Amino acid sequence: MLFFTQCFGAVLDLLHFRFHHCQAKRVFSSAGQLICVVNPTQNLKNGSSKCMVPVENSSQRTNQHLCHQPVCDPQLTSCTCPLYSCKWEGHLEVIVSHLTQTHTINVLHGTEIVFLATDMHLPAPVDWIITHSCLGHHFLLVLRKQEKYQGYPQFFATMMLIGTSAQAQNFNYKLELNRNRRRLTWESTPRSVLDCVDSVITDGDCLILNASVAKLFSDNGSLAIGIVITASKLCAVEPEN
Amino acid sequence: MLFFTQCFGAVLDLLHFRFHHCQAKRVFSSAGQLICVVNPTQNLKNGSSKCMVPVENSSQRTNQHLCHQPVCDPQLTSCTCPLYSCKWEGHLEVIVSHLTQTHTINVLHGTEIVFLATDMHLPAPVDWIITHSCLGHHFLLVLRKQEKYQGYPQFFATMMLIGTSAQAQNFNYKLELNRNRRRLTWESTPRSVLDCVDSVITDGDCLILNASVAKLFSDNGSLAIGIVITASKLCAVEPEN
Repeated sequence: MLFFTQCFGAVLDLLHFRFHHCQAKRVFSSAGQLICVVNPTQNLKNGSSKCMVPVENSSQRTNQHLCHQPVCDPQLTSCTCPLYSCKWEGHLEVIVSHLTQTHTINVLHGTEIVFLATDMHLPAPVDWIITHSCLGHHFLLVLRKQEKYQGYPQFFATMMLIGTSAQAQNFNYKLELNRNRRRLTWESTPRSVLDCVDSVITDGDCLILNASVAKLFSDNGSLAIGIVITASKLCAVEPEN
Repeated sequence: MLFFTQCFGAVLDLLHFRFHHCQAKRVFSSAGQLICVVNPTQNLKNGSSKCMVPVENSSQRTNQHLCHQPVCDPQLTSCTCPLYSCKWEGHLEVIVSHLTQTHTINVLHGTEIVFLATDMHLPAPVDWIITHSCLGHHFLLVLRKQEKYQGYPQFFATMMLIGTSAQAQNFNYKLELNRNRRRLTWESTPRSVLDCVDSVITDGDCLILNASVAKLFSDNGSLAIGIVITASKLCAVEPEN
């Protein structure tokens, strides 16, 4: 009997180990809600990360066939990768394929998900990111840990539309943290991915958490952010599903 | 006709001037909601404020007849004035009279009010504060502008119960900022006024705004914070009205 109990314990330990060390992003459903486990994508400076993002160098950058062409189509407008550690530049229409292929970022579907960012203790700068497909568009949820003042890390969470600022006005999003009888909610219109994340942070147009607040809402070093995206009343958008 | 138009304009200007420069805290009702205009109470270091709070010095403090008596009744527990600029210490049961008499802070009634903090541009440290009576208890809403890192002012808003931590668990409160299609909401249980504001800020157990976020939600240098206080489901509290 003791042998079976020990075997069962060992299997549980293995499952627990696998859960915490799997490098890929994972999506599962709990109580009807889609939960996406998001590992951090770190800056090269921090080195030796299991989740290291391949960062293209400047010679690769100049080979981007879509860069710097003077065109008017919004889809052909040049933008940068929202990841802090990546210097990629390209057109709006190829940013999703860049994120999914180069950074192996999953595309999730549905208007409500839970974004579970792991390893919140990692030193800044570091990004957590997912691509989200709903209401006929692609959205990016970017969570960045950054030290605007040295020794004072903060977390900045924002939703960005892969589209223009005018298109972004047709949507609203809500980010919600909930733990131990505390709830913090941020509701806004998404920003266009054509605005860089730095400018969104400088504007304060995002959910901002001091390290102490992030700790209050974290559980075992992971932070769960509930996300809801809706079409604004100003414009009726055909839902995808 | 032109003369009358000019006279009317001058009267409007005077009213506008009086609204912005009146030193007393004002309470008025708009669309069924109680709005309390709260002027800042500044630190002595900032000097020459129209809203300067009389700050007692250390000799006054030692004359407080209720200080430092070893007693067990929570109402006779010693606490400090929540204002940054005031060194007063006394028992819980007299803190409301200290705030209303020494700092001429109004006591408002009702579970829902709008806290309108003026002159947000003033240099830190500075406090905005109201006393709020509802559900059979007194609460304090403290908004503090402080530089935890020099040159990086932040705003910290918290609700404190004039009571013990155990009593505070019987309530919930919500603070809400709402402007230009953005909404930021903080919901929590109040902290006891026996915890000092500094420890609440250090714990991150409050609504925290960077200067840029405060600017996004401000209108003409004033920040409106919607406040709702409710009895928690854990304990049925007899409403005051």
